[in-house]
Amino acid sequence: MHYVASGCIRTPDGELPGRLKVILDSLREVIEQHRPQLAAVEKVFVNVNPQSTLLLGQARGAAICAAVSADLPVAEYTALQVKQAVVGNGHADKEQVQAMVTRLLNLSGTPSPDAADALACAICHAHGGLGTMGALATKGYKVRGGRLV
Amino acid sequence: MHYVASGCIRTPDGELPGRLKVILDSLREVIEQHRPQLAAVEKVFVNVNPQSTLLLGQARGAAICAAVSADLPVAEYTALQVKQAVVGNGHADKEQVQAMVTRLLNLSGTPSPDAADALACAICHAHGGLGTMGALATKGYKVRGGRLV
Repeated sequence: MHYVASGCIRTPDGELPGRLKVILDSLREVIEQHRPQLAAVEKVFVNVNPQSTLLLGQARGAAICAAVSADLPVAEYTALQVKQAVVGNGHADKEQVQAMVTRLLNLSGTPSPDAADALACAICHAHGGLGTMGALATKGYKVRGGRLV
Repeated sequence: MHYVASGCIRTPDGELPGRLKVILDSLREVIEQHRPQLAAVEKVFVNVNPQSTLLLGQARGAAICAAVSADLPVAEYTALQVKQAVVGNGHADKEQVQAMVTRLLNLSGTPSPDAADALACAICHAHGGLGTMGALATKGYKVRGGRLV
């Protein structure tokens, strides 16, 4: 496992279709440039605000479309699985994720919180994905005193 | 204004990315085949169930991606605007929409409720979109006794 690149896509203000196009085109460019074999995407929590949930869903749909239109398989992990795989604690905070990602990938600088989340999701998959602690965490196990309970 | 074609895309059971790919690829095929100049999409209501809202958002995101990736402009109308434009009543039921779509487009048969909704959205745009009664309906006007109040 080694680090290649990371970053964030920011969409301009304006109408939704144009913003979705920016996500789609930017991710296609990244796929074109780096030729990955797979995409790992975080499963999102449904927000308390329905309008935000809808917006998030549309953005996530555009991101997945960029992957599937390049015939990439898409693996999905919950935030709990990702954090469990990278930090060993499904409820770790952003700083811990950033610190562990920086360490696991031997980065010279700390990635932004969003980029770190994306890298953590990739690490989660690279580390065996659903066969790891992350999967156990979703089966209702918890780690307490170093043991799964 | 004349009728060209209509239909529904059904996605197979299975993982979300595969289902979004079916929406994306099928709509691209339709666009490729009929070469429209524009897409009109219904603005969706946020569902009471957050999980459904997220799913709907992702599906809608994939549909809009098919349009923007073919460089089509995308117009969005609420169900209220669409019904107001086609039936003259923002709260008309599905049967009324089907009946008016069949009549306005001189169809020999009645399209399915979902196809009729999509055709109604296209008619709403063709009839001037936001410049029509649909726009007035969203500005808080109501039709009562044949007058805007």
